[in-house]
Amino acid sequence: MSYFRENIEKLAGYVPGFQPKGAEVVKLNTNENPYFPSPKAVEAIRNFDTSTLKRYPQPFGDSFCEAAAKVVGVEADNILCTNGGDDLLTICFRCFCDSQRAVAYPGPTYSLYSVLADLQSCKVIEVPFDEHYSLPAEKLIAAKAAMTIVCNPNAPSGSFIEVSQIKELADKLSGKSILLVDEAYADFADDNCVELVKLCDNVIILRSMSKGYSLAGLRFGYAIACKEIIAGLRKVKDSYNVDAISIAAATAAISDQDYFRANVEKVKSERSRLTDALRELGMEVGDSCANFVLAKCNNIDAAKVYDDLAAANIYVRYFRLPGLEDKLRITIGTKEQNDVLTGALKKILP
Amino acid sequence: MSYFRENIEKLAGYVPGFQPKGAEVVKLNTNENPYFPSPKAVEAIRNFDTSTLKRYPQPFGDSFCEAAAKVVGVEADNILCTNGGDDLLTICFRCFCDSQRAVAYPGPTYSLYSVLADLQSCKVIEVPFDEHYSLPAEKLIAAKAAMTIVCNPNAPSGSFIEVSQIKELADKLSGKSILLVDEAYADFADDNCVELVKLCDNVIILRSMSKGYSLAGLRFGYAIACKEIIAGLRKVKDSYNVDAISIAAATAAISDQDYFRANVEKVKSERSRLTDALRELGMEVGDSCANFVLAKCNNIDAAKVYDDLAAANIYVRYFRLPGLEDKLRITIGTKEQNDVLTGALKKILP
Repeated sequence: MSYFRENIEKLAGYVPGFQPKGAEVVKLNTNENPYFPSPKAVEAIRNFDTSTLKRYPQPFGDSFCEAAAKVVGVEADNILCTNGGDDLLTICFRCFCDSQRAVAYPGPTYSLYSVLADLQSCKVIEVPFDEHYSLPAEKLIAAKAAMTIVCNPNAPSGSFIEVSQIKELADKLSGKSILLVDEAYADFADDNCVELVKLCDNVIILRSMSKGYSLAGLRFGYAIACKEIIAGLRKVKDSYNVDAISIAAATAAISDQDYFRANVEKVKSERSRLTDALRELGMEVGDSCANFVLAKCNNIDAAKVYDDLAAANIYVRYFRLPGLEDKLRITIGTKEQNDVLTGALKKILP
Repeated sequence: MSYFRENIEKLAGYVPGFQPKGAEVVKLNTNENPYFPSPKAVEAIRNFDTSTLKRYPQPFGDSFCEAAAKVVGVEADNILCTNGGDDLLTICFRCFCDSQRAVAYPGPTYSLYSVLADLQSCKVIEVPFDEHYSLPAEKLIAAKAAMTIVCNPNAPSGSFIEVSQIKELADKLSGKSILLVDEAYADFADDNCVELVKLCDNVIILRSMSKGYSLAGLRFGYAIACKEIIAGLRKVKDSYNVDAISIAAATAAISDQDYFRANVEKVKSERSRLTDALRELGMEVGDSCANFVLAKCNNIDAAKVYDDLAAANIYVRYFRLPGLEDKLRITIGTKEQNDVLTGALKKILP
């Protein structure tokens, strides 16, 4: 006899990307930013008044809400702070989904969605992307799910769906389904869906400070949505889901837009260089709008390439999943890291 | 039409204790520790290598698990790190409860339990405490719940149930129900239930760094249980639920047992002094094993006393709930704060 609910008992659980130890490793497997966080964020941590830690933090992280609202062009009560983007995903599943209320999304995509659906005992309708990763809008509408998720740019493809198409989907889902646009990687794209929260009553935007702001270790994300939705999400979040030091550091980081933009430009420039280099090596690489690329291995087993790279202390991500078995997802590293990778691939690839 | 699940729509949401602003306030309303966190924890924050923040943190907070295991006398895989004790409560409700699997607990107790039960659409069987706050073991067993919670010391009564009685309850529930012992306040009691996790396959202990370690702002708690239960809880927690700085600070704090013990002794000594002072003022105050006392107002409306104190910038907690309408929950402050409180009460009480 198990004490756990049956769906939990059956669950394998989400497997985070492998975290290799040792300084000599080239780590391109979990879409972390290779550059340091903003000096302003570091200063906020160094100058943090630790005597205040005996008190509970702001329940809603007001300082961050105000700073983020200014940056993205909404009001503070259009923002919900979360303990990483994953916390927001969990909150949304608990708000909108259950055994009678399904979730739908195009796939392959972020593998955590299906784990969270299992936890919430909710049915998953995964609509397969075509080879161009176009939005399968009609099938998503036909799914009649309580929540629809579009990861944009999508992981692990790096592909981007135009805002106008997402707007059209949101309108068709209005009154029927929440549309959660997972913009964890939007900092590396040329456009995003923020304006939709002013036009649509059913759109939630997910943002993360982990990627564009180099703060994966801090656990900070946020939602942007209309006030009514934010108020509902706040009922479900933990009373104090973000801590005082994280609020201070994330507030400083998002306020330092100059540093952020320079950081993102460096990643985008390396993305362009790495994409060219991989194509020259004979890999098929789509144009990516994220901080990683998905590279197809021709005439060689992708799992073998993964193993050979790992043996050389270079870690990328391999998913043994339909549509992904012949591909590797490679995070954009520094120039030096990317050169080490392409140097190693030159020896491994046929 | 609402996009939210019906139970979320109906939910009022948990109301955290009021967080008054301004330095001149005597804040005795949310059971925070009046003393500063350990200098070792402060040092860990000051010396934290912020360049590592671009990476994800340890998914299971290994450093803390090892340090906590040493302190409480278990193995590291008997520990689960959580984003405050509330995160563990949420994880437990999601693991063990749903519309078919009820929760039972004696009350009045921590008001978040019923909010989390509503979120999980699970039935609540609240068994009323008698006037001595004795464990209503038979009624809890008869409830046949999937999860039974005992808050020990209990909030808001501060009362303590002997470990032998909890052991007996755990044995009777074995094979039928998880027994979650919420020990958020155990640091201020003379005994605790840690040894039970070695004897019982169904006991989970909740601990918090917010109270005894003065780190409410950091959001750090942990579970202690047998390895099988910890492994199950890990499937449900967020992939990276605790951040890198919090792991470092909490690890340093729990490793500094000398500071911790001195801090707790100061609170206990003030608790004893404040209890005597309130009794002298004619309030009925039970012996508390926590960092607060529950004081009954005689011949005067407790809500009026609350208002009069608030008008004097002194904040305590008043619950408009059955069995609590005539009482105030008062957090143990510093000597100076407690003296300000009793001075004000002298003028207010009849």
